[in-house]
Amino acid sequence: MMQAYREAQKAFEEDEVPVGCVIVKDGKIIARAHNRKEKKNCALFHAEIECIRNAARKLDNWNLKGCEIYVTLEPCMMCTGALINSRIDRIIYGCEDPKGGALVSNIRLQDIRLLNHYPEIQGGIMEKECSDLLKNFFKNKR
Amino acid sequence: MMQAYREAQKAFEEDEVPVGCVIVKDGKIIARAHNRKEKKNCALFHAEIECIRNAARKLDNWNLKGCEIYVTLEPCMMCTGALINSRIDRIIYGCEDPKGGALVSNIRLQDIRLLNHYPEIQGGIMEKECSDLLKNFFKNKR
Repeated sequence: MMQAYREAQKAFEEDEVPVGCVIVKDGKIIARAHNRKEKKNCALFHAEIECIRNAARKLDNWNLKGCEIYVTLEPCMMCTGALINSRIDRIIYGCEDPKGGALVSNIRLQDIRLLNHYPEIQGGIMEKECSDLLKNFFKNKR
Repeated sequence: MMQAYREAQKAFEEDEVPVGCVIVKDGKIIARAHNRKEKKNCALFHAEIECIRNAARKLDNWNLKGCEIYVTLEPCMMCTGALINSRIDRIIYGCEDPKGGALVSNIRLQDIRLLNHYPEIQGGIMEKECSDLLKNFFKNKR
């Protein structure tokens, strides 16, 4: 999660909402990314989406079985859907997102009954650091 | 929807699950795309995702307010989340997807209470044609 946090710091420095992530396979980081929505001027460029793209390229496979993602903020509906479509094994997140989170907050993944894949979920890793970075970002914006 | 259907036919010809879409603004098609998941070897390449990317590029704006998407199949969780994140006005789809649909089928969008944007939804447009194209595709696969 420290590596995901470093990615989030890069987003902070680029004046993007500070969210970062890494995808790990067999104990090695195979992809990393941070949020670049403003720079790319496109709502698709959340950290997780770019990270999935990088991981699929690296593995030359859309199927990310055997991989896990460490992400500083609970993923939104789009990113959660993308992680499910990619069949990732596990999602480990820093802090929850009460507004947009789609694992435990706004949508509770376990309540959706027909998905063809359910990643394991673990939250609260480096929660305070991940949350403080976001708070500092939005404090500076106001 | 005829134009979205034509995109789906392109996917069919490319041996991809036949789903296509167009994004319309002020009565004009500003972006079109079809599913290219297998070709790109990445689960992100659903028709809607590429179409959102093309539309945001064309408008030079991540915010697709004033736009509507015509898509042959009810969008999945990833694509619905991406359309919400992009603030699209309206989603018009052909046939429902009981397995993966995230508007009315697997997830009912109206039951999620905290989203920051709710697109209008309309389904069943050219339903039989869109559904038959998918059925033919999967029949050929078996």
